[in-house]
Amino acid sequence: MRATTIHGPFDIRLSDVPDPEVLRPTDALVRVQAACVCGSDLWPYRGINEVRPGTRIGHEFVGIVEQVGAEVTTLAPGQFVIAPFSYSDGTCVHCRAGMPSSCEHGGFYGARDEHGLLVDGGQGEWVRVPLADGTLVATPQLPGDDLLADLLALSDVMATGWHCARAARVGPSDTVAVVGDGAVGLCAVLAARLQGATTIIAMSRHEPRQTIATEFGATQIVAERGAAGVAAVRELTDGVGVTAALECVGTNESMTTAFDLARPGGRVGFVGVPHGVQSPVETMFRKNVALAGGMAPARAYLPALRDRVLAGEIHPGRVFDLTVPLVDVPEAYAAMHERRAIKTMVLP
Amino acid sequence: MRATTIHGPFDIRLSDVPDPEVLRPTDALVRVQAACVCGSDLWPYRGINEVRPGTRIGHEFVGIVEQVGAEVTTLAPGQFVIAPFSYSDGTCVHCRAGMPSSCEHGGFYGARDEHGLLVDGGQGEWVRVPLADGTLVATPQLPGDDLLADLLALSDVMATGWHCARAARVGPSDTVAVVGDGAVGLCAVLAARLQGATTIIAMSRHEPRQTIATEFGATQIVAERGAAGVAAVRELTDGVGVTAALECVGTNESMTTAFDLARPGGRVGFVGVPHGVQSPVETMFRKNVALAGGMAPARAYLPALRDRVLAGEIHPGRVFDLTVPLVDVPEAYAAMHERRAIKTMVLP
Repeated sequence: MRATTIHGPFDIRLSDVPDPEVLRPTDALVRVQAACVCGSDLWPYRGINEVRPGTRIGHEFVGIVEQVGAEVTTLAPGQFVIAPFSYSDGTCVHCRAGMPSSCEHGGFYGARDEHGLLVDGGQGEWVRVPLADGTLVATPQLPGDDLLADLLALSDVMATGWHCARAARVGPSDTVAVVGDGAVGLCAVLAARLQGATTIIAMSRHEPRQTIATEFGATQIVAERGAAGVAAVRELTDGVGVTAALECVGTNESMTTAFDLARPGGRVGFVGVPHGVQSPVETMFRKNVALAGGMAPARAYLPALRDRVLAGEIHPGRVFDLTVPLVDVPEAYAAMHERRAIKTMVLP
Repeated sequence: MRATTIHGPFDIRLSDVPDPEVLRPTDALVRVQAACVCGSDLWPYRGINEVRPGTRIGHEFVGIVEQVGAEVTTLAPGQFVIAPFSYSDGTCVHCRAGMPSSCEHGGFYGARDEHGLLVDGGQGEWVRVPLADGTLVATPQLPGDDLLADLLALSDVMATGWHCARAARVGPSDTVAVVGDGAVGLCAVLAARLQGATTIIAMSRHEPRQTIATEFGATQIVAERGAAGVAAVRELTDGVGVTAALECVGTNESMTTAFDLARPGGRVGFVGVPHGVQSPVETMFRKNVALAGGMAPARAYLPALRDRVLAGEIHPGRVFDLTVPLVDVPEAYAAMHERRAIKTMVLP
């Protein structure tokens, strides 16, 4: 089959790789219907994370179950499934506590599983999904093409935005600021609205992103960054700051902004994969601002988010503004790296 | 009057200072009935925090209102009052949100107020308390001497322990570990019990402190520290870790231990004044462990804690294991520094 591999900075290729097979009785083989490129894929793409040349890449996909192992009980060939960005057994102590991202037997696409067997990356034609019963979330029927983007967005960005707002315990009457206008930040705006926030300030300089933020529920847009952005948010909040600041980037600059935005007693939610991030412990102490978040337990959120999509209640797929065929996957990365696209869908 | 002053490392003196007066119409003069030494007073005592020689010190006291300014409406001479460790107006946006420790007009004992006027330290005969209506919490009647220690403990350590457990959102069925067996750590044990935790592991090597921890509600004691302590707590929690780790020291070592103890999806509450503390952002991200806490909004907690003391429900004053007259205040510090005492009460 063909699958995306990374060979070094800015070197993404579509490669011929072995067809996957059911290797464990808990596996499912999924034929990918749509995949996408994550902001976190750009870290190795930009050479900030080192990679072994030829590594499979991609961790967001939806598809059709084609084959299942002998111990898979909840899935059958022909079903449409959403894959959360990590796989998990659904039965360990952490999964049962709602933390599948810390599954004792789980792992990531594009790497080896606990048996030393390669797990395909998501940006390819097929994926062998380990622990399929615990991992994959099926739809009751085959969804129409019009739902493909919305369901694909649940795989990571919408689940991650949801987690950011949940970690910051967003609730009714909260005043929220979202730092980061990538797909996750935009989904965090949507999540904050769904979780009841009354004021949602999206920090974004880019008109197309501002438009989606507003569609998703932002009540105000702040285009300024850094100190000027903090001052603008302060002015919008009577000089007080926000009850919840949602950090959706992963840089020290965005984390600093988030803490500057939070009012005393407030919370910072964070889901950007941290790169050189320091949390300002003294400021947290003085202002009583909490920090919570991390790698989203996406699997735990998927059933409810799926139902909202199927009900037509949310359209997180709006974050996709470029679609390329799999053969053009290098362009999918380049467009996001150059910020020509918010998020790119890849169709095999 | 006589009041405690600090002149350098290990140089605590009882000095003659001017008698306080009502300087602002919102002031109250309080005749101190009992004061005490805080773990945080030991930072300047040990020379870790720099001090200006002659600085007043002490921020925990209870006493009798002797005089009030013209604008004080809720207090009258003769009332017994508990002073939280910082003063606050009770009316600003942060006080109204339950964060008096971030009061727009508040401040600390032993320093200048926003009008540039000296506020006495708590370890003396009298204290001019600014913003008295917002700050002081009176008892309905004059309490008996048997309640003095319990009420004094509310001024800081019990309110701070309470805050630590609240910040970590301790609730029924939680498994809690408390890092630090000082007075705050012991009070955090008590707070965790009051907030419904079923398993409370106190980390303590010292028999007298272990005894109080058990009285306060600890269900297990772990005497080991560092990696051995973490391993012992893991064993007590089926290898999983605790849902809430309460950091009550303020060193990087204790913060590291707290994060090592927390299970994925857990929370670290922290109230130790941070000295060189780093929060492990990557670990927080990977394990989804939240960090919350800071300087306790003691004033917000005092009425309910006072009522529990007056009802005989809690005895946080058990943390006092040495009482000295004000003239011996240097010994009050030395005993705590040398860990001969958990917490020292000073009687004028």
